[in-house]
Amino acid sequence: MKAAVIGIGLIGGSFALTLKDKGICEEVIGVDNSERNRAKAVELGLVDRTLPLDEAIPAADLIVLATPVDSIPLLAVKVLNKVDRQVVIDMGSTKQELCEVIAQHPRRGRFVATHPMWGTEYSGPEAAVHDGFEGRTVVLCDGAESDPDALKLVEDIYRKIGMPIKYMSSEEQDTHTAYVSHISHITSFALALTVLEKEREEEHIFDLAGGGFESTVRLAKSSPETWAPIFMQNKYNVLDVLREHIHQLQIFRRLLEKDDTEGLKQMMQRANRINRIIK
Amino acid sequence: MKAAVIGIGLIGGSFALTLKDKGICEEVIGVDNSERNRAKAVELGLVDRTLPLDEAIPAADLIVLATPVDSIPLLAVKVLNKVDRQVVIDMGSTKQELCEVIAQHPRRGRFVATHPMWGTEYSGPEAAVHDGFEGRTVVLCDGAESDPDALKLVEDIYRKIGMPIKYMSSEEQDTHTAYVSHISHITSFALALTVLEKEREEEHIFDLAGGGFESTVRLAKSSPETWAPIFMQNKYNVLDVLREHIHQLQIFRRLLEKDDTEGLKQMMQRANRINRIIK
Repeated sequence: MKAAVIGIGLIGGSFALTLKDKGICEEVIGVDNSERNRAKAVELGLVDRTLPLDEAIPAADLIVLATPVDSIPLLAVKVLNKVDRQVVIDMGSTKQELCEVIAQHPRRGRFVATHPMWGTEYSGPEAAVHDGFEGRTVVLCDGAESDPDALKLVEDIYRKIGMPIKYMSSEEQDTHTAYVSHISHITSFALALTVLEKEREEEHIFDLAGGGFESTVRLAKSSPETWAPIFMQNKYNVLDVLREHIHQLQIFRRLLEKDDTEGLKQMMQRANRINRIIK
Repeated sequence: MKAAVIGIGLIGGSFALTLKDKGICEEVIGVDNSERNRAKAVELGLVDRTLPLDEAIPAADLIVLATPVDSIPLLAVKVLNKVDRQVVIDMGSTKQELCEVIAQHPRRGRFVATHPMWGTEYSGPEAAVHDGFEGRTVVLCDGAESDPDALKLVEDIYRKIGMPIKYMSSEEQDTHTAYVSHISHITSFALALTVLEKEREEEHIFDLAGGGFESTVRLAKSSPETWAPIFMQNKYNVLDVLREHIHQLQIFRRLLEKDDTEGLKQMMQRANRINRIIK
């Protein structure tokens, strides 16, 4: 099988490597608007060669959309306009708008909407790694809208990579991803801003980061170009969970203002329940 | 040198191991209110033997206070009442109240207030590890209040462990620690509560945790018994930084409500500055 990966950054680059590592594809073609990214991707061995989009589509059996989510719906339509037998997947973090836009496309069946639950705080082709996806969950959305052969091909690929598959509607996926993934990024961005605002002496941040700050703030290094479109596309779910998060912090603040040690302990004990779910 | 470690949990147990591993002490005596913790600490080889507090003090050259911070000021006074030549250190995350309480003690000079910037989200003797402290910063507070020989002994110990030493007043330490460490824990506790509140299906949390949630929520597993006293003792600094954090989240929310993609990007770009400080 030959694949074309459109957008050879952290996600696309790592997926390209995985397709080769797992023996799923004998050739991976890279497509990217940026000349620098194309050169880097070849130099780093992420892809075998690069082609313009129009030439890559007929040369590939599998087309992988791995660009920022605000560009995916339009790109999906353009790609579907040119495919016949090929299968197209995306790797974006939001799905509702995409699935709405392509709903009436005559070749909607060739598209399988997927969200592999992996990423790091880094971006660009240099951030691509070999072993990102294995063992992580992948969400397949609105599977009934895909042709059975397309769905089966994609399920086989993810199984070969070693990713457990969860099935959801695109609406459910956007809600759950806001609750679990998107809010973590906002928390982390806001924590970085808080500490940069309060702590004018950067040396102290560096020295004291061992006290838990480092892991909590890790996601604040993430790319604004990736994340602004995700928050915008998933605006209502993100706002919903963000309001709840501010509310929890306000409760915390009020308990502390009132010297309510017992109330604080009870709140933290409830938070400790996350232990049962995440080891 | 012989040490007595009072409170043989995550911090005390790990420090006891380090004192032996680094060849600093030939014997470490454990002191703990809990019979279970004492038995565990001996069973796991964290300490050589256990003794009641009153017997441990005369048997030791170095006395290490590693109990929750609300118990440290009183414990410090009780221990100082019984020492002569020994050196006493604490490992707590807050210092102002402690240093105020012992300020007038006739043997104040035997005490060195220290905060090793290391911890994990686990607690109890089972959580103790061999290689926690090396490479982490330790804050020494109000060093001028300690006898020169006591200060030198403690500096030598931390240097042997391989911990860079930073000197601060107890007031500065509490402010900076609130800004960098304490707020991270509140963020994480509140994030866990947010997700547990919104996401009623725990399976989804487990499945989707790969999307950044796992590292951001890690500290929410921390012990309420450890952290409630820290927040209470550092109340005004913690409230100050917590207000700023809520404010940053509210700005984020308003930008999203107004569809201000450019504003969101600029906010995240400012947060990215944390990159320069923490690799």
